[in-house]
Amino acid sequence: MKLIITENAEEMSETAAQYLLGQMLLKPNAHIAITGGSTPKRMYEIIVPKVKDKDQFAHITYYNFDEIPYRKENREGVTISGLRNLYFNPANIAEKQIYILDQFSYLQQDSYIEQLGGLDLMVLGLGADGHFCGNMPATTAFGDATKKVDFKLNDKEQIVREFGGVKENVPDYFITMGPRSVMQAKSLLMIAYGKGKAEIIKKLMAGKVEECVPSSILMLHPNITMIIDKDAASLL
Amino acid sequence: MKLIITENAEEMSETAAQYLLGQMLLKPNAHIAITGGSTPKRMYEIIVPKVKDKDQFAHITYYNFDEIPYRKENREGVTISGLRNLYFNPANIAEKQIYILDQFSYLQQDSYIEQLGGLDLMVLGLGADGHFCGNMPATTAFGDATKKVDFKLNDKEQIVREFGGVKENVPDYFITMGPRSVMQAKSLLMIAYGKGKAEIIKKLMAGKVEECVPSSILMLHPNITMIIDKDAASLL
Amino acid sequence: MKLIITENAEEMSETAAQYLLGQMLLKPNAHIAITGGSTPKRMYEIIVPKVKDKDQFAHITYYNFDEIPYRKENREGVTISGLRNLYFNPANIAEKQIYILDQFSYLQQDSYIEQLGGLDLMVLGLGADGHFCGNMPATTAFGDATKKVDFKLNDKEQIVREFGGVKENVPDYFITMGPRSVMQAKSLLMIAYGKGKAEIIKKLMAGKVEECVPSSILMLHPNITMIIDKDAASLL
Amino acid sequence: MKLIITENAEEMSETAAQYLLGQMLLKPNAHIAITGGSTPKRMYEIIVPKVKDKDQFAHITYYNFDEIPYRKENREGVTISGLRNLYFNPANIAEKQIYILDQFSYLQQDSYIEQLGGLDLMVLGLGADGHFCGNMPATTAFGDATKKVDFKLNDKEQIVREFGGVKENVPDYFITMGPRSVMQAKSLLMIAYGKGKAEIIKKLMAGKVEECVPSSILMLHPNITMIIDKDAASLL
Repeated sequence: MKLIITENAEEMSETAAQYLLGQMLLKPNAHIAITGGSTPKRMYEIIVPKVKDKDQFAHITYYNFDEIPYRKENREGVTISGLRNLYFNPANIAEKQIYILDQFSYLQQDSYIEQLGGLDLMVLGLGADGHFCGNMPATTAFGDATKKVDFKLNDKEQIVREFGGVKENVPDYFITMGPRSVMQAKSLLMIAYGKGKAEIIKKLMAGKVEECVPSSILMLHPNITMIIDKDAASLL
Repeated sequence: MKLIITENAEEMSETAAQYLLGQMLLKPNAHIAITGGSTPKRMYEIIVPKVKDKDQFAHITYYNFDEIPYRKENREGVTISGLRNLYFNPANIAEKQIYILDQFSYLQQDSYIEQLGGLDLMVLGLGADGHFCGNMPATTAFGDATKKVDFKLNDKEQIVREFGGVKENVPDYFITMGPRSVMQAKSLLMIAYGKGKAEIIKKLMAGKVEECVPSSILMLHPNITMIIDKDAASLL
Repeated sequence: MKLIITENAEEMSETAAQYLLGQMLLKPNAHIAITGGSTPKRMYEIIVPKVKDKDQFAHITYYNFDEIPYRKENREGVTISGLRNLYFNPANIAEKQIYILDQFSYLQQDSYIEQLGGLDLMVLGLGADGHFCGNMPATTAFGDATKKVDFKLNDKEQIVREFGGVKENVPDYFITMGPRSVMQAKSLLMIAYGKGKAEIIKKLMAGKVEECVPSSILMLHPNITMIIDKDAASLL
Repeated sequence: MKLIITENAEEMSETAAQYLLGQMLLKPNAHIAITGGSTPKRMYEIIVPKVKDKDQFAHITYYNFDEIPYRKENREGVTISGLRNLYFNPANIAEKQIYILDQFSYLQQDSYIEQLGGLDLMVLGLGADGHFCGNMPATTAFGDATKKVDFKLNDKEQIVREFGGVKENVPDYFITMGPRSVMQAKSLLMIAYGKGKAEIIKKLMAGKVEECVPSSILMLHPNITMIIDKDAASLL
């Protein structure tokens, strides 16, 4: 593992942006899975003006790695919608550059990626509980590939705000690439910042690999880079 | 994972030899860890005449990945002695091409390999109990790097024949690269043959990743090739 | 350049076979251009039984790099027919694994390969006059990509035996990947044997790069391996 | 070749900085040759604050690829001094991270780099006359490796200002990696901007490969990226 500790969240975002832009320049036909959520927000702000309408990035293909579909309304799921808002729309990414994982495509996800020769890079966030993608503690096992996971009752209550409070839209399940699928990527970039991540970072660096901390398995990937800020590293 | 099922043990050995020779031809300064024991014996017989005194292979560096040192006598350990007999001696490998892991060097093993940029390939056998290198069930954890492991009493009784029956030579510990260290290699090649391996192969392919089956973690490596014969695959 | 000098033509063939099989095992979805003619004949004999009906090689894609089409008869050209006889037919290579360069596809050849990310390997012969593929001295320039080349009159007289003596079938042109196109491959493997190649090998190793010796440019490729026998190396 | 055309010199510098930082993040032990002169000046200004005292870049090794030694005074040559001013000093690069090519080391340059497995990246400027490194038209041949080149009389007159006008310091020769040596790098990054480069860029893109335009050979490298601004591209 390569561990990069930055001064603050801004520098974390800049360094992650450097890494992502570097991957795209060095391999212009790269296949890259990217993360939504709040952690990468500033990273996307940095790269959007550098990517928007630039020919050199026109052959990158982007992937989402999990999805929470709408149950009632016929519209795109929470993850891909979020990525559109954060990155695809402001950066003018062409539709043909986006490969969508959802409830219709998930059974083919792993075999599709395998015949590509693997994803070149996955950019991942890290939950305070150790989750990555939709691999929450006690929901997926290390050996799981891309799968449909049933929501537990209290998950659904939490997730309702992702659906604007419309309970009828909250589905019974979500889709995620499992630990096995994520480990197949050629390289992983994980980003985290803030005191709120200090405990989980300490746990990951302690080196124990256990299913109740899903991201602990990723620490064994032969080509993972962690970019975290001083606050996230404060317990090391 | 790439799974290759061969007709028989002879074809397993030939295919593994192809892989190993291919790695050495494609990257003439490769760093490769190799396995002792009985499984690779025929593979070495095949490659020895193709490697012996050939200039094209003069810049390969070889590594052992575990060692059982002699306690009393001042001589090289069981693993490296075995590799000399099986491969280094018949193939006339120069001493400077051999990097030795033993009780004196093990604390530097992981950092040494890291600054090289990682091993290019590790060739591994597979125990019927799921062990690889010296990672026996219930001895090392997934998160362990290269370490010294204390023998249990009944291990020592079993291991005594490796020391020609001389009990005084059996040490209290052995050295092994741990799961964490092995996962850092750029590629892994695992070989197995025979009905005796059918159960463990079935277990590995079922996809559960658990510390009581040490090799189960290796199934998640992004670049692992398994070459097994039909007998070993007979329960799939 | 990596130069491997073998005892004789048989060992050249075996070593080239090792290289080719190694590339296919290490990258099972590799894109590989292969050569016809007499030099690789024994190499194909060696690999055919190791490739035939083997699942591990079912995702390799093969390319020809030049072609002499039939003028009158509606049949496949000289190169691809030769490759079928030498390799594709005896090795039972599936039609979908063969990407054909001919008079209909040549204008797309370079852009097609570029969007793949480049050929992984090209296996090339070497003419006593320094030619490779259809890049004969004084016909193509170093900067040429894949192109149609007009035959000169005496070329046509020589080439007539490739068409079974049927003059009406000899075309006015042939197709070849040019030096520019060949240089784009990720790796090159060139094979040659016999006293008849000793002069050109001497010239190539002397290091002058000049268009009248087309293959001299390939000596600058960052990842070229030359496998030649002692006779071909006898003037070094 | 990947050609990136930027709006202006500033964007050229930013994009080149992205590429260089990307290479260093993706391969933290990379071996990189960098260029002096005026073209990369702004690129260095951009990367200096991102590299200075950052642990993640502490294992990069830097190379110069040509040198004009002082004749009389006992001090470092023009190229390495320039790189210290532009980059090594402001970025606090440790001395052990700098591998110096000069009149004392040049005979070992190519074999040293070969045993490393090759440079990962060379960042190159482009002369209006088509030169790169010290490969001026009519001075080195495509086949030349690293060598000492005698100055011609009028070269010495031009070069005197590099030596602060002190004629006694102008040497009779300079050192340069030749076209053969540069072509061995795993990847090349060439940068150019301004109307003054438009003619040579037009010539390079026309595709003719000829020794009187030294950089024309680099256009055949399988992994070259050109980053040029609109002015430099204005004749395309």
